[in-house]
Amino acid sequence: MKLISYLHGGASHWGCVIGDGNGQGVVDLGRRLPAFASVSALLEGGEAALAQARQAAEGAAPDHALAEVRLALPIARPRRVFCIGVNYAHRNAEYKDGSDLPKYPSIFMRVAESFVGHGEPLQQPLESQQLDYEGEIAIVIGRRARRVKGDEALACIAGLTCMNEGTVRDWVHHAKFNVTQGKNFNASGAIGPWIVTADEFPQGYGALRVQTRVNGEPRQDDTTAHLMFDFAYLIGYLSTFTTLEPGDIIATGTPTGAGIRFDPPKFLQPGDVVEVEVSGVGVLRNGVRAEQAEGAAA
Amino acid sequence: MKLISYLHGGASHWGCVIGDGNGQGVVDLGRRLPAFASVSALLEGGEAALAQARQAAEGAAPDHALAEVRLALPIARPRRVFCIGVNYAHRNAEYKDGSDLPKYPSIFMRVAESFVGHGEPLQQPLESQQLDYEGEIAIVIGRRARRVKGDEALACIAGLTCMNEGTVRDWVHHAKFNVTQGKNFNASGAIGPWIVTADEFPQGYGALRVQTRVNGEPRQDDTTAHLMFDFAYLIGYLSTFTTLEPGDIIATGTPTGAGIRFDPPKFLQPGDVVEVEVSGVGVLRNGVRAEQAEGAAA
Repeated sequence: MKLISYLHGGASHWGCVIGDGNGQGVVDLGRRLPAFASVSALLEGGEAALAQARQAAEGAAPDHALAEVRLALPIARPRRVFCIGVNYAHRNAEYKDGSDLPKYPSIFMRVAESFVGHGEPLQQPLESQQLDYEGEIAIVIGRRARRVKGDEALACIAGLTCMNEGTVRDWVHHAKFNVTQGKNFNASGAIGPWIVTADEFPQGYGALRVQTRVNGEPRQDDTTAHLMFDFAYLIGYLSTFTTLEPGDIIATGTPTGAGIRFDPPKFLQPGDVVEVEVSGVGVLRNGVRAEQAEGAAA
Repeated sequence: MKLISYLHGGASHWGCVIGDGNGQGVVDLGRRLPAFASVSALLEGGEAALAQARQAAEGAAPDHALAEVRLALPIARPRRVFCIGVNYAHRNAEYKDGSDLPKYPSIFMRVAESFVGHGEPLQQPLESQQLDYEGEIAIVIGRRARRVKGDEALACIAGLTCMNEGTVRDWVHHAKFNVTQGKNFNASGAIGPWIVTADEFPQGYGALRVQTRVNGEPRQDDTTAHLMFDFAYLIGYLSTFTTLEPGDIIATGTPTGAGIRFDPPKFLQPGDVVEVEVSGVGVLRNGVRAEQAEGAAA
């Protein structure tokens, strides 16, 4: 099942996408399952809630064509977004600092407001010409978890989505440690288009491919077989210090080939179109626009 | 006005603290102002809402003695908690790495679940013996702000509270960059006891003293006169990349003298009592206990 949050007729809704290609349609599940106010609420309901959603969607006629709705973040307001730094083994080499493979993952956080949904423009901020893409697979948590390991950790995955973990490169290097400011510009990243639920990954998560294209040109292409810290490890590690809850998101790291790694760098420019494709999930597509000056405090 | 969130009779409330010393009492403002469901909602209402709260509290008889209620975080569920790394000038020297003063602040984020309220125990986690204190002044934002500077930035402050930005030292060093995991253990820090509103700082924020004591022994003691990045700068800098909103919290950094800086280090032990005192705000006091093993996933 492909879960979405969306806007239609000026109001927020949630539902699922059915059909293929140009025939893709949206089933308004919020209307059919009023007990669940959002995708988050559905996930909090666990497997029983997901089963209700599947039943409600089965055989339903779409309420809208997909093209008629505006997609929000699949979880309209994610509780917490944990991002993993260097995780594809080739990337550690890309840093060329001669360092050994890391023993533990690097983690930072992003605020919800730093992301837009599928189809919405990424924003090159007034302060920088160095907006860069990072294509990633994002895990959506579906079960409360503390100190879980192995299969128990994997069972906490509600589904996967695509993330463009867009980064303002010069601001990443403002501080000696910590990348928060370069990772949290308003509308600098994207999540979507939907969450594909875990039941659609019967082969597991060990050989998922993630690709990034800019204006159709391939830039990043790798598979989870090269992760230094796999999904089970990441969920286990994060759940050691914090209780994971339904709706939490874990961005699992980006392959080599971000714009900063080219010589000269290939940063995103207004008018560019970035696509992040994850096997079994789909394609997250966003244009890029320059931010318009808007004055100071509201 | 001293704004609090609290538990009483098994339910969540918000209000303010009146009186002094043993005579301190709690006025239940949520009952008197049902339009505002929480301290966050009050702050979203801006100056007009604060004026209503002041009026409702004026001359009111306390509903409870302060000792009868259990304090939650002053904002029960903070939207976002931004923390500033090294900010007191003496601390940059403390690192002894010969580095120049930083040009920009270091920023990381903490999740709400990493904090407890005044009087609740800090938790030494199962995985570490290195729970450490960091006394800080925390700014609570009261006004939506993007790209604000100077006095306009200061006008976005709803009030101040105390923070123990408690840290699990060995986990801070797990990654080359980013301190997220060492800063986000469940119940490793504290915020409170209350938010003292901005009108009670007519002299501004340039000479506030922050002190930390462990079992009564002074450990940290400095003033905001020594900040490398003052409150106006921090609000301006953060609001460059993200829109600050009422209820956001900014922890402004800790003075020299955390437990890790002693030789041998003085980490917190079960039974210790930590106090963070900020001039014009009050004292945040928390005991320390060892976490009890609780099993895995819920």
